[in-house]
Amino acid sequence: MPYVMVQIPKTPAPAQRSVPTSADVARLAGVSRATVSYVLNNTSAVRISEPTRRRVHEAAEELGYVPHAAARSLRAGHSRMVLMPAPAIPVGSLYSRFINELQQALGRLDYTVVQYGSPGPAGDDAARAWAELRPVAVLVPGSGLGPQGVALLRRSGARAVVTLGPEAVRGAHALLMDHAAVGRAAGAHLYARGRRRIGVVVPEEPGLEVFSRPRLDGVRRSLRGTGATVTELPLAYEEEAAAALAARWRDLGLDGVFAYNDEYAALLLRALQDEGVAVPGDTALIGADDLMVGRLLRPRLSTVHIELPSGRDLAELVDRAVREPGAALERREVLGAAVVARDSS
Amino acid sequence: MPYVMVQIPKTPAPAQRSVPTSADVARLAGVSRATVSYVLNNTSAVRISEPTRRRVHEAAEELGYVPHAAARSLRAGHSRMVLMPAPAIPVGSLYSRFINELQQALGRLDYTVVQYGSPGPAGDDAARAWAELRPVAVLVPGSGLGPQGVALLRRSGARAVVTLGPEAVRGAHALLMDHAAVGRAAGAHLYARGRRRIGVVVPEEPGLEVFSRPRLDGVRRSLRGTGATVTELPLAYEEEAAAALAARWRDLGLDGVFAYNDEYAALLLRALQDEGVAVPGDTALIGADDLMVGRLLRPRLSTVHIELPSGRDLAELVDRAVREPGAALERREVLGAAVVARDSS
Repeated sequence: MPYVMVQIPKTPAPAQRSVPTSADVARLAGVSRATVSYVLNNTSAVRISEPTRRRVHEAAEELGYVPHAAARSLRAGHSRMVLMPAPAIPVGSLYSRFINELQQALGRLDYTVVQYGSPGPAGDDAARAWAELRPVAVLVPGSGLGPQGVALLRRSGARAVVTLGPEAVRGAHALLMDHAAVGRAAGAHLYARGRRRIGVVVPEEPGLEVFSRPRLDGVRRSLRGTGATVTELPLAYEEEAAAALAARWRDLGLDGVFAYNDEYAALLLRALQDEGVAVPGDTALIGADDLMVGRLLRPRLSTVHIELPSGRDLAELVDRAVREPGAALERREVLGAAVVARDSS
Repeated sequence: MPYVMVQIPKTPAPAQRSVPTSADVARLAGVSRATVSYVLNNTSAVRISEPTRRRVHEAAEELGYVPHAAARSLRAGHSRMVLMPAPAIPVGSLYSRFINELQQALGRLDYTVVQYGSPGPAGDDAARAWAELRPVAVLVPGSGLGPQGVALLRRSGARAVVTLGPEAVRGAHALLMDHAAVGRAAGAHLYARGRRRIGVVVPEEPGLEVFSRPRLDGVRRSLRGTGATVTELPLAYEEEAAAALAARWRDLGLDGVFAYNDEYAALLLRALQDEGVAVPGDTALIGADDLMVGRLLRPRLSTVHIELPSGRDLAELVDRAVREPGAALERREVLGAAVVARDSS
C-alpha cells in the first residue's frame, strides 16, 4: 500500500510545530472557529458580514494559514479532484498530448487532474488506494479495474468512474478503445497491396502488451480465412536488435510487415535498408500512430492514424457524470483507426 | 484555485448516502471508534489484542470501509505523498523516462508520486494549492516557485521541498539543472569544427522556453569574443515551417546550426536535404537529447547527450530530506552535457 501508516510522533516534528490552525485564525480575528470555517469555505448557508469576512481573510493571510483540502473534502463529501493512475511506463508522444489536452479541458471546468503514481497496488487494491484521496471522479485507462473496484470507489464518494479500455466494467462509464481496430486496418491494407506473408513487430519492452496484443490480434483477425500467414516478430527498441532481425529477413520470407508503431517501423526501416532489403519493393511496411518521424524518413512511412477522444469531449463527459451521478452509464466507441498510405507500402 | 469550494448539499447526494464510516465499523465489531482508529491506523501507542484487531479488520472488510487518507494525514500530520506539478506541455521521451524512473524509485521507498495537474495557479499560489493536499515532500521542476511558496509548503507540513531548475530557491533543496550547459557544448563543438556563422533553432511551441532560452544563451556565451555570429531561428514543429526555413537557407548564409533537440534537428535536416543543402558540407548540424531518431537518419545526427539525475539518487535525496527535515539544504549540479559527434557536423 502506498499510503503506509506513519506512527504518530510523541512530540510534534520541528516542521509541524508551527503549522497554523483555524483556531489560531479565529483567535487573531476575534471570531469563532465556525465562522472561520464558514468564511474560508465560502459557505452560502450562513450570512456573514463583509467586515467579518475581511477580518478572517486578513488573519489567515497574516498567519499563513492554508486550509486542508482533506478537511474540506471531509466536510463537503468530495473534492474537485479527478484522479487518473499515472502510466507505469514512459509515455509516447500521442498519449502525452492526450493527457495534456485532457488536463487543460478539465482545468477549464475547475477540476484538477491528479495522476496517481505507479508502481502501486494493482486491480481492486489500487481502487482502495485511490479511494483514500476521495476523488470526485476517477478515470482509468487500460484494463485491470474490476466491478468490485468500481463499487468501492463509488461507495467512498467518487461520483463517476470512467474506464478507457477494450471492455466495459460494470458500474463504470466506458469509453471503449479497441486497439484491435489498428491491427485490422493495417492487415487489410497490406492484403490489399497483394501481400500474403505478413510479419507483425511486437515490442519486447514490458508494459506495452496492453496495446501490442490487441494490435497483433487485429492483424490476425483481418487475415483470417484469406490464406495469408502472420508471423510475430518480437523486437526491442534498439538498433542492434533491429539489425539482427533484418539480418535474417530473407530467411523469414515476408513480403509485408506491420510494426507496432511508427517508432518501431522507423527503426526496422533503417535496418532493412542497411541490409539491402527494398521497401516497399521486397517488403511493404506500415506503422501506426502517425508520428512525425514517419514523414521524415525516405520512403515516407505508411501509417495507421489513430483518433483518440478529444480532451474536451472527455472532460465534458466527466463533468456531466459528476453532476448527475445517478444518470445512465455511457458506453461509447471512441478509437478511430484510418490508414494513411504513403510510400513504404 | 483548483480546489473550488463545493456548496454543502442540503441532502446528501445518492452516491454518498451509503458511504460507510468508522462508526459503522465500530458498531459491527462491537468496539469503540477509538479502537477502530487505532487498529486501522496500526498505532503502536496502544496495545490491542489480536482477536479484537481481527474483528475490526473483518468488520471493515464486510462494510467496504475505506479509511480517508485525508483524515489519516490530519491525524499523522503528513502523508507518504510526494507531490510534483504535472508538466503543462506534452512531455518528451527524455522527461517521460525520467519521471517514470523516479516514480519507480520512490515507490520502492513506499512513497507515492502524485502529479498535480496543470493548468493551475502559478508561483506561490500554486504552492498554496499543493499545500492543501498535505504532501510530505514537494518536487518542483522548472522555475516559478519562490521563497514564500517554499515557506508556505514547509509551514503546512511538507518536510522537504526540492527544486529542479536553473537556480536555488531559499529554503528548498536544489538540484541545479542549467540547460545553458547544453548550448555551450553545442556552440563550442560547432566552433571547433570551424563554423563561424551559427544558427540556433528555437521552438515556437509555447512552454518550451524554460529549456530553449538557456540553451540559446549557452551558445551565445560559448562564442562570446570569438567573432562568430549567432542567429536565432524560430521554428514550429511542422514540415511546412521547416521547408520555409530551408527555402531561405542560402540567404541566411549559416555554416553551422544547433537545433533545440534531435526532433527539431531531424525536421530541419530533412528540409535542408530536400532543398539541396549539404549537411555537413554546407552546414554542420547538431541536435540535443540523444534521441533514437538521430541515429536513424543519414547522415547520423550529432547531438548533445544529457545526463539527468537518476531517479534512484533523487528518490534517496527526498527520503533523506523527509526523515531529517531540519538537516542542511542540499545544492547539487546534476545536469551533465556531452557532445556525441556523429556524421552531421
